[in-house]
Amino acid sequence: MAYDDMNVFAQILRGEIPAMKILETDQALAFLDVMPQSKGHALVIPKAASENLLSADPSIFGPLLAMVQQVGQAAMAAFDADGIVVQQLNHSAAGQTVFHTHFHVIPRYEGVPLKPHTGEMADADVLAECASAYKAQLG
Amino acid sequence: MAYDDMNVFAQILRGEIPAMKILETDQALAFLDVMPQSKGHALVIPKAASENLLSADPSIFGPLLAMVQQVGQAAMAAFDADGIVVQQLNHSAAGQTVFHTHFHVIPRYEGVPLKPHTGEMADADVLAECASAYKAQLG
Repeated sequence: MAYDDMNVFAQILRGEIPAMKILETDQALAFLDVMPQSKGHALVIPKAASENLLSADPSIFGPLLAMVQQVGQAAMAAFDADGIVVQQLNHSAAGQTVFHTHFHVIPRYEGVPLKPHTGEMADADVLAECASAYKAQLG
Repeated sequence: MAYDDMNVFAQILRGEIPAMKILETDQALAFLDVMPQSKGHALVIPKAASENLLSADPSIFGPLLAMVQQVGQAAMAAFDADGIVVQQLNHSAAGQTVFHTHFHVIPRYEGVPLKPHTGEMADADVLAECASAYKAQLG
């Protein structure tokens, strides 16, 4: 499958659709998942085009994983999370639905099950509050 | 929590207990999960000590994620997988059970649900066959 530059993350990177951004560098962008599985669920994506991790250029892997770490650390502090699930899905059979490489950073809270990742948009005010809490940590 | 160097992955790195190794560099090691959630379920770990990704030294992230990619690519080819789930768990609340940073590389097959990751050791012959299939891909 060839990279389709009309995927939603490519559109976010081009500024064609909005996103709740929390951290940005020359090589990567972090923003909130609008259908969060838990409070603070964020996504980290490389700016370079690739369909998934298997076909991505390894030269960006250092800064990309460093941003995953930073966002995870920030989630622990901002939301008093008890743990972080990092998940990265490749191909439909693995549950990938947007075909631009992305890492899920999903805070976990003791005794709170994850919500399914199936289409309920979070309240915009709640997302804005989460984005602010992240940005307070990430500077 | 301080790093406990008696964790099972530290013991594998020191050669004190065996593992079905599939790829090794100066900085990272890949080997089979002995309680696979699917055929070819592998683990990728840094050699440097760290309890989880949040506390790991980012200087190893490039080579570490490159090995995750290589193992994922090899799984697609070796087992004719349809997708790859990459999962990395931090702290007990996120499901982490071995406290040395690790990435799960879990092949997915259309129509085949994942097995739970709960303690059934795979048959040694089946694991050996998987390791051989990986090594044929990884050189």
